[in-house]
Amino acid sequence: MKGRGERPAGSALDVALVHCPVCNKAGETIGSAVTNLDLHDIARACRTFGVGTFYVLTPFADQQELVREILAHWLHGHGAIANPDRKEALSLIRLCSDLPALYQAVREVHGRRPTILATSAGHQGEYWSYDRATASLAAREPLLLLFGTAWGLAPEVMAEADGVLPPIQGGNGSYNHLSVRSAVSIILDRLLGRG
Amino acid sequence: MKGRGERPAGSALDVALVHCPVCNKAGETIGSAVTNLDLHDIARACRTFGVGTFYVLTPFADQQELVREILAHWLHGHGAIANPDRKEALSLIRLCSDLPALYQAVREVHGRRPTILATSAGHQGEYWSYDRATASLAAREPLLLLFGTAWGLAPEVMAEADGVLPPIQGGNGSYNHLSVRSAVSIILDRLLGRG
Repeated sequence: MKGRGERPAGSALDVALVHCPVCNKAGETIGSAVTNLDLHDIARACRTFGVGTFYVLTPFADQQELVREILAHWLHGHGAIANPDRKEALSLIRLCSDLPALYQAVREVHGRRPTILATSAGHQGEYWSYDRATASLAAREPLLLLFGTAWGLAPEVMAEADGVLPPIQGGNGSYNHLSVRSAVSIILDRLLGRG
Repeated sequence: MKGRGERPAGSALDVALVHCPVCNKAGETIGSAVTNLDLHDIARACRTFGVGTFYVLTPFADQQELVREILAHWLHGHGAIANPDRKEALSLIRLCSDLPALYQAVREVHGRRPTILATSAGHQGEYWSYDRATASLAAREPLLLLFGTAWGLAPEVMAEADGVLPPIQGGNGSYNHLSVRSAVSIILDRLLGRG
């Protein structure tokens, strides 16, 4: 068995993809539909960077069923034989119906409440720096990152979090319309990437 | 007009997504199909980081037609009105039929031959470091990044390039099966990201 110091830093990090409550283009609070490629791309990134669990949040029964069907194909069906690497990635996914269930699940895995950080393309205000988050992971303190689909996490989710990571900025002024798949990948690399 | 020193570093960088020649799972050289979401995600990342042009390479007439239809919707059709941010991103795309046409197009835009760097999840050997590529862009020296779809760029494409960027490594040993969408996003952030 590995001691605490030997566990990779990523094992202290969990990622949650929130489909409800999120904002639509008009800023209204909605629930969004699950996108198949979000599950694949984000699971592959999580596996590459050694993330503990990739939580997929949706309260809708038909969307939960869709996630279960996708997982069944890749974990137990033809996909598992055709592409074992994909199976390895998608096995990180856990379904959750809502934020209270998510927070409870993460607490149970880590034995204590994690630090909860929201992400946003447009948030104004104070931020947790990437350096602070990296240091927290290096100390193996559990950290939960929330990512919103559609036009981002609803304001009440942002307000409840312990902090917000800075928006990803490129060299081109204020344009910031990355896909959530890209945003997760970049943030995991900033927190856990090497080489 | 801006002088050379004021142009953002990203303007010296072009990205090419290669669909042929690439490898399949068995290592054979093939041509792959265009994926709609590759165009969107990579164009959005390119626009966020200020990349000059996003070249999409395919020699197949039906695949070129698909790319043209997607672009027509988002640049001139309903998509352009419904989502101007997406129009701004997808307007960076240029279709190219093959590598010689790509190299010629990039030479014409920049007035000289760019440095051509390949990317690979599994390449063994010498690398161009990210620091070296970043310094090259800071000096506004034209740089062209080649990304392969399917199981990656064919060996002859790798051999012709001026160098290869190091594979993206996470904290989790040797697993590296990122989507090309994630890989492009991470590499652009490493070369041009801020904050």
